[in-house]
Amino acid sequence: MTYKILAGAFIFVLMTMPVFAAEEKKLSPSEIVKAAPASDWTEIDPQNLLVLKLKTGTVIMQLATKFAPLNTDNIRTLAHEGFYDGLSMYRVIEGFVAQGGDRAEKKHLGGGIKNIKGEIISKSITKDSFKSLELKDGYAGETGFVGGFAAGRSSDKKETWLAHCTGVIGIGRGDGADSGGTEFYVVLGHALRYLDRNITLVGRVLKGMSALQKLRRTAELKKGENIDIENPIISLRVMADLPKEEQKTYEVMKTNSSSFNRLLAARRNRPSSWFLETPNYVDVCAVNVPSRLKTMVGKQK
Amino acid sequence: MTYKILAGAFIFVLMTMPVFAAEEKKLSPSEIVKAAPASDWTEIDPQNLLVLKLKTGTVIMQLATKFAPLNTDNIRTLAHEGFYDGLSMYRVIEGFVAQGGDRAEKKHLGGGIKNIKGEIISKSITKDSFKSLELKDGYAGETGFVGGFAAGRSSDKKETWLAHCTGVIGIGRGDGADSGGTEFYVVLGHALRYLDRNITLVGRVLKGMSALQKLRRTAELKKGENIDIENPIISLRVMADLPKEEQKTYEVMKTNSSSFNRLLAARRNRPSSWFLETPNYVDVCAVNVPSRLKTMVGKQK
Repeated sequence: MTYKILAGAFIFVLMTMPVFAAEEKKLSPSEIVKAAPASDWTEIDPQNLLVLKLKTGTVIMQLATKFAPLNTDNIRTLAHEGFYDGLSMYRVIEGFVAQGGDRAEKKHLGGGIKNIKGEIISKSITKDSFKSLELKDGYAGETGFVGGFAAGRSSDKKETWLAHCTGVIGIGRGDGADSGGTEFYVVLGHALRYLDRNITLVGRVLKGMSALQKLRRTAELKKGENIDIENPIISLRVMADLPKEEQKTYEVMKTNSSSFNRLLAARRNRPSSWFLETPNYVDVCAVNVPSRLKTMVGKQK
Repeated sequence: MTYKILAGAFIFVLMTMPVFAAEEKKLSPSEIVKAAPASDWTEIDPQNLLVLKLKTGTVIMQLATKFAPLNTDNIRTLAHEGFYDGLSMYRVIEGFVAQGGDRAEKKHLGGGIKNIKGEIISKSITKDSFKSLELKDGYAGETGFVGGFAAGRSSDKKETWLAHCTGVIGIGRGDGADSGGTEFYVVLGHALRYLDRNITLVGRVLKGMSALQKLRRTAELKKGENIDIENPIISLRVMADLPKEEQKTYEVMKTNSSSFNRLLAARRNRPSSWFLETPNYVDVCAVNVPSRLKTMVGKQK
């Protein structure tokens, strides 16, 4: 009888082994990012990267040129000409935004434009370039990703817009869609999705959110303190304009790659046994499209 | 003919005036909070407030005793006995959490408990005490509020749980629901809803998120730096234990009040003409149940 049980157990092991072998090892989100092959990444054009230097650290930003060609061109021109250098992050509200630029409206604009046409909704982004999450959302008919950016979409209207996720960069405006151009803000806390389809968004922070989080808050200034002095913008530069030895190459994960598909699945349901429950859901702002510094021997570290 | 047009215009004005007059003036969310009558607020028991002092500022926390009676009692006991004083915020991850406590597991626990029963899901919270948002959500069957806290609910199972919104306070755990008790964390960035129904949550930050955001990040420490020295917990105290002259009274808006109903409506659709589009939606973590310092002449400022 013992023999029969052992034999049975042996057969059971044999039967289940191929199943285990065939099943892909379930990786965590960070393991999926680490394991992603080079072909699942794409380099970001250094013309589309901004480097913001603050007293609290350096912020690397990726421009969303597809969504806002005029506005990203404008901010690039302004950065190229050194417009922002010596200005400040003059409006910092906990859990909301850190806003920078020229609040005094005194600085010479050079080739930049003060009130540029708003680019809030794109009609030129095709269904094919929109990677849908295929999950419900309260703010948009559909949500997904275009390049490295979280976006909403209305399929019937063929309209696509960037989502106000944490770390997204917007162009402050007054009344009307076309009333901004130079003043930018970064979303600091929980996503501000109610601002979707209301403001031109121009990019996202790839690295250095903590430098923005460490800025002095407007509401916390003491008497006699001046926010322009507390939160100076040391410089804002286009990566491509930096001296070669200071330039760094960043890559973003392709959202049409199998690694990104695996990442989305792992974010919907974390594979770790630590989890007691998984929601089989993820909201678009809870997925940060991975980016990384490209390391090349002898060139960068 | 000019007369007829004018007369017509006059009649039109007369006809529309009563409509405008009858319509309540649309207030912004912050105006609604300011206009809320005293009866729409309730005082928070000072036994349910914690005061965390850090080098970067002071954090005021509200305990969710209904959801986690054992765990909030435990953290209150530990704070009462000064357990956290001199410990540190030893794990700070940008956009994720700031975690504090006794990572070395060296400190005498006194009346506190190291591994306490998890209180992840409540079966005792009734439908009546749950203020439903009545809007769709990807992570929970239903979302809403209990007291000052954002929560998810499964109506069929009669289960209610706190939602991992920005500023929520959780009890770190190892494997299994009952493997934590002393180590707490605060959600720093976008809501971490995938952690819902996985961790005991004990409260939320009412004030002072910026003090947590200004902590040194674990990943940014330089060689030779020690996070325990960088991010010390100066003290963590129960408000009721402080000397009378240091105690402050906080109030929270009643979620069954008409002010809160108005606030939810204004968050779904901002009434300002600045908005080009409004979503007629708000996610549960985008609503912070208002709280305020109660000011009494001659007592507090």
